[in-house]
Amino acid sequence: MDTIKKVDILRIKGEEFKGEEDVVILEYPFTIFVNDEEIITLLCSPNSLKELMVGFLFSEEFISSLSDIDRIRLDEDKGIGYIYLKNINQFNEKLRGKRTITSGCGKGTLFYNVLDSFKSKRIKEPLSIEVENIKRLISKFNKKSELFLNTGGVHSCALCSANDIILFEEDIGRHNALDKIFGKALLEGIDTKDKIILTSGRISSEILIKSAKRQVPVIVSRSAPTSLSIELAEELGITLIGFARGQKMNIYTNFPSLIF
Amino acid sequence: MDTIKKVDILRIKGEEFKGEEDVVILEYPFTIFVNDEEIITLLCSPNSLKELMVGFLFSEEFISSLSDIDRIRLDEDKGIGYIYLKNINQFNEKLRGKRTITSGCGKGTLFYNVLDSFKSKRIKEPLSIEVENIKRLISKFNKKSELFLNTGGVHSCALCSANDIILFEEDIGRHNALDKIFGKALLEGIDTKDKIILTSGRISSEILIKSAKRQVPVIVSRSAPTSLSIELAEELGITLIGFARGQKMNIYTNFPSLIF
Repeated sequence: MDTIKKVDILRIKGEEFKGEEDVVILEYPFTIFVNDEEIITLLCSPNSLKELMVGFLFSEEFISSLSDIDRIRLDEDKGIGYIYLKNINQFNEKLRGKRTITSGCGKGTLFYNVLDSFKSKRIKEPLSIEVENIKRLISKFNKKSELFLNTGGVHSCALCSANDIILFEEDIGRHNALDKIFGKALLEGIDTKDKIILTSGRISSEILIKSAKRQVPVIVSRSAPTSLSIELAEELGITLIGFARGQKMNIYTNFPSLIF
Repeated sequence: MDTIKKVDILRIKGEEFKGEEDVVILEYPFTIFVNDEEIITLLCSPNSLKELMVGFLFSEEFISSLSDIDRIRLDEDKGIGYIYLKNINQFNEKLRGKRTITSGCGKGTLFYNVLDSFKSKRIKEPLSIEVENIKRLISKFNKKSELFLNTGGVHSCALCSANDIILFEEDIGRHNALDKIFGKALLEGIDTKDKIILTSGRISSEILIKSAKRQVPVIVSRSAPTSLSIELAEELGITLIGFARGQKMNIYTNFPSLIF
């Protein structure tokens, strides 16, 4: 199965902009069933799925050797892996509190909300924004990301108006940094519906959904978006911008919201 | 609380090497209790913890507004946040399957194994390795990371002997890529005890623990390690190398295992 997907983007370089075809990394929900019991949905790249399933169960100590495995079946179209283990009691203990969803960059149980979010979370107040403002925000954002420069180990996230950074947070986890922003906005009574999220980290479906829940109309990242985050942004009417660096950026969705 | 930590490293540039003090990003386990019920342990940066707790519970729909919160108490020394909500029934549903542990780059329920791993997972077969071999492996590793070059959105991971790459996997998630490696190794009967793990991603405590469970004696990353991964590596006798790029690398633990 392909691990990348072709998408149409609007590429901006300084004053120039043109429509292009680009490739993004595929984000694939893969649900693992152990002896017909649903254990977890991993958000992953759809290659080496058998290895991923076995490796995950090995890491999480569902299995301790190859001989614990009876048989394995993959349904790649549905995104499901079935594994049958010989010793049921051994892993039954593990099932409790185990039903999480993660890309290895994820928070638990988030993905089940995706379908709801399709229906209920569409952006109600679209925001038009000038490309020049985004460039200015990015340059302010980069200046603030000092901890990142010091250690190379942390993600930055900011909530911005069209003209300035209002909230800024850092964390080793992309999701934590975003949760800190939304937590602070809630505590301080700051409306997020007319704001812009800037992040240093990759935009996965989970980041997209967290922002959509807060009705943030524009998300800008220094890094890459996944295929699933682009599909969700399209569906929810969110303007998704990636690889925003200096005078360059790629617009993935909602092109008409940009003002040149 | 500090979000960075000073550590002694061995910095290698080409033929030169010298001991230096460096700063690494602090990885802080923060456990959230809702109405005295333990919900989750986040692996995070220890700043804006109140905001993180509120934002996480907002994102996960434990709360829908500020008025749902009765009171909040932080115990920063213990790494615990207590939040009391007015409406208990509202979030009780959420508690099921909710007990996961994540850095926003994590897999569920992994962290509870840390203390065990301190006792049981110490590397039994230390591996000495030549710095020149690591440089060669890194350059082979970079050449293989094509998907990353195409899309900028994927992590690479490899299992290596001293001289060559044996297994290579890619995934949008650092943890998935590593699980694919260990899954393939198990399926193909490849011993991991005398091998080296190469990864493009940051080394968090969770990556370190996954590798320690497989008794991998040397872990090399193109990116940064966290404070907790360094402490674990020290404790477990694992050689931890970060920022391995071209002729440069930082050695964080187990210096004597390197041959110049």
